[in-house]
Amino acid sequence: MTTPEAAPTGPTGLKARVDAALAGFLAGRRAALGEVGAELDPVAATLSDFLLEGGKRLRPAFCYWGARGAGAPDTDALVAAAASLELLQACALIHDDVMDGSDMRRGRPAVHRRFAALHRAGGWLGDPEGFGTSAAVLLGDMCLIWGDQLLDSSGLGQDALRRGRPVYDEMRAELMAGQYLDLLEQALGGGSVERALRVARYKSAKYTIERPLHLGAAFADGGPAVRAAWTAYGLPLGEAFQLRDDVLGVFGDPSVTGKPAGDDLREGKRTVLVAVAVERATAAQQALVRRHLGDPHLDAAGVEALRCVLTETGALDEVERLVAERGAAALASLERAPVTDEARDALAALADAATRRRM
Amino acid sequence: MTTPEAAPTGPTGLKARVDAALAGFLAGRRAALGEVGAELDPVAATLSDFLLEGGKRLRPAFCYWGARGAGAPDTDALVAAAASLELLQACALIHDDVMDGSDMRRGRPAVHRRFAALHRAGGWLGDPEGFGTSAAVLLGDMCLIWGDQLLDSSGLGQDALRRGRPVYDEMRAELMAGQYLDLLEQALGGGSVERALRVARYKSAKYTIERPLHLGAAFADGGPAVRAAWTAYGLPLGEAFQLRDDVLGVFGDPSVTGKPAGDDLREGKRTVLVAVAVERATAAQQALVRRHLGDPHLDAAGVEALRCVLTETGALDEVERLVAERGAAALASLERAPVTDEARDALAALADAATRRRM
Repeated sequence: MTTPEAAPTGPTGLKARVDAALAGFLAGRRAALGEVGAELDPVAATLSDFLLEGGKRLRPAFCYWGARGAGAPDTDALVAAAASLELLQACALIHDDVMDGSDMRRGRPAVHRRFAALHRAGGWLGDPEGFGTSAAVLLGDMCLIWGDQLLDSSGLGQDALRRGRPVYDEMRAELMAGQYLDLLEQALGGGSVERALRVARYKSAKYTIERPLHLGAAFADGGPAVRAAWTAYGLPLGEAFQLRDDVLGVFGDPSVTGKPAGDDLREGKRTVLVAVAVERATAAQQALVRRHLGDPHLDAAGVEALRCVLTETGALDEVERLVAERGAAALASLERAPVTDEARDALAALADAATRRRM
Repeated sequence: MTTPEAAPTGPTGLKARVDAALAGFLAGRRAALGEVGAELDPVAATLSDFLLEGGKRLRPAFCYWGARGAGAPDTDALVAAAASLELLQACALIHDDVMDGSDMRRGRPAVHRRFAALHRAGGWLGDPEGFGTSAAVLLGDMCLIWGDQLLDSSGLGQDALRRGRPVYDEMRAELMAGQYLDLLEQALGGGSVERALRVARYKSAKYTIERPLHLGAAFADGGPAVRAAWTAYGLPLGEAFQLRDDVLGVFGDPSVTGKPAGDDLREGKRTVLVAVAVERATAAQQALVRRHLGDPHLDAAGVEALRCVLTETGALDEVERLVAERGAAALASLERAPVTDEARDALAALADAATRRRM
C-alpha cells in the first residue's frame, strides 16, 4: 500500500497506479474464474491482456482529478475506484468491435477475432466467426460486471460509493444511448453537423471527460459549484477529444491509432468531420462520398480520394478549428474553477493530452 | 405505497408487485432516454415490451422469499430490489438470442429481429441483420446497467445494499462464465453428463435459484445457517429447473415455451438430456444425432427422429428421474431449513412451479 505522501500523481505515476490496481483486480478475477473451470482461462487471459496492454487511462485520470480537485485526499482506494472506468471502456470497445466488425484494436486482433482464431485452431464445431462474436458479447458483459466489482471493492468508503453510484450508472446508460444514436446515424447515412455533434456528445464527450469528473466530485462530496465547473471544463473538452479522435480515425498513423488506415471510412462512420464535408461538398464530391464511404473493401486509392474530399471541402480545417475553440473554452473554464491548484495543473495537462494532434 | 400489512405475497400478488415495480422503473428510464433524443424511443419501447409482456418472475420471487425467510419484513423496497433480477435476465435473454441466432422469444420476435425489421421498414443503409444484432447488443448492455439502477433506487437501506452487492456481482459473473461454458460445450460437440451438469449449474441453476436466495439473505442480514440452507434447497432445485427447461426445449408446446418446436435441437444445445442420450445410444442412434443435432434447417421429421432417440435411449426418463430426485432433495432440505413458515410454504410452491412438467 502506497502512503498518501509518497504516491505519485503525475501522468506517468498515476497511470502506473491505475495499471497496478487493474492488474491486482484482474488476478483475483482470473483466480475466481479458474474455480469455475479451467476452460475459462482464455476468457481471463484475454481480458487481462486487453486491459493491461493498452489504453491511456484517460478516464481514470479525469475521475481521479475530479475527486482531488473537489478536495478528496490521494488514496489508493480512489485510484482503484477510478480504474473501474477502464473496465467499462473495455466493455464498450469489445462490443463496439463486434458491432463494427473491426479486425484490430490497440494494434492487435479484436477480441471477437481472437476467439474465432481459438475456435479455428481447436477445429471446433460450427462457425468460428459466430463463436468469436458470441464470446466477445459475453466478455464485454463480464467487463461491465467487473467494473462494478472493482468499484465496490476499491476500498472507498460507503458514503462515497453511495454518492458515486448514481453518477456511474447515469454515465453508463448515456454511453449506451450514445452508442445507439451512433449506430442509427450510420444507418440513416448521416445528417446535419448539429446531429453529428450530439452523437459525439453522448457516445464520447460526456462519458470520457465530464462524467468521470462528476464521478470523482461525487466521491469527494463536492458541491454544485464544482460539478458545474467540471461541466464547463469537461463538456467542451470531451467534444474536442471526440473531434480529434474522428480526425485520427481518417488521417491517423496506424502505429498510433492501433487500427488500419482508413478504418473509420470503411466502417462508414458518420462523424462531425464527414458531416461538415458533406454540407460543403460539390455534387461530384458528394457522389464520391456516397460511392466510397462505408465500403468495407475500400482500397488505399479510395481512402485517399475520401481524404481529399475532407481536406478540399475545408472540413478538416473546420474540425481543427472546433477542436482548438473547444479546447480553449475548456481551459478558460478551468482557470475560473473553484478547485485546488494541483488539480488545475493536472487537468490542463490532461486537456492537452486529450486533444493534441498525435497521441 | 402499499402498507406491509395489506401487501399480497402469494404468487399472483407478488408477481403483480414485481410487474408494478418494473413498470414504474421503466417509465422513468423511458423519460430519461427521451431527454437524450426522440430516436431512442424504440429502445425504451422495446425494452418495456420485452420486460412487461412476459416472464414468470421466478428470480425475483426467490430473492424476495430468500429475504423474508431470513427475517426481512415485507416492503415494496424489497420487491423493487428483487425485481432488478428481471433486468439481468432480460440482458441474458437478449444477448443469448443474438448468440444463438434465435428468431423468437416469449412468443414474439427476438429483440435483434425487431430492430432488423425496424431497419428494413425504414429502408435504411447497410445490413438490417447487422443493425439488429448491434442494437440488441446495446439493449442487453442497457438492461444490465438498468438492473444496477433499479437495485440502487429500490429504497432498500444502504446497509442492505452494501451486503447484497457482492452477491449480486458474483451471481452476474457466474452467469456470464456459465454462458461461456455453454457456448464452448456446443463448439466441442458435447461431452460427459457430468460436464453438461456443470454447465447447467453455472449458466442457470445457481443464477436462477441459489444466488437470488443468497441475495435475499444478504439483504436480510441472514447468517451462515440461512445461507447454507438456501444452497441445500436452491442448488438441487436450480438443477431440476434447468433439466426441466432442457426437456421443454425439445418436447415443449410452443404455445407454452414461446419458441418454435425443436428450437434447442436446431441450435445444437448440448444439454444433460442430450449427453445422457449420447452416452447410451447405439452406433446408428449416434450417427443420427451427429447428422441432425445443430442443423439450422432441421424439419419436423428430423425433430421427430431426434425426439425418438432421446426417448428410446431412456434419456428422457433418466432426466425426469433426475428432476424428481433433485426436486425431492430440495424439498427435504427446505423442511429442515431454519426459516419462517410463511417462507417455507411459499418456497415449496415455487419449487413446484419451477419443475412441474408444464409451465
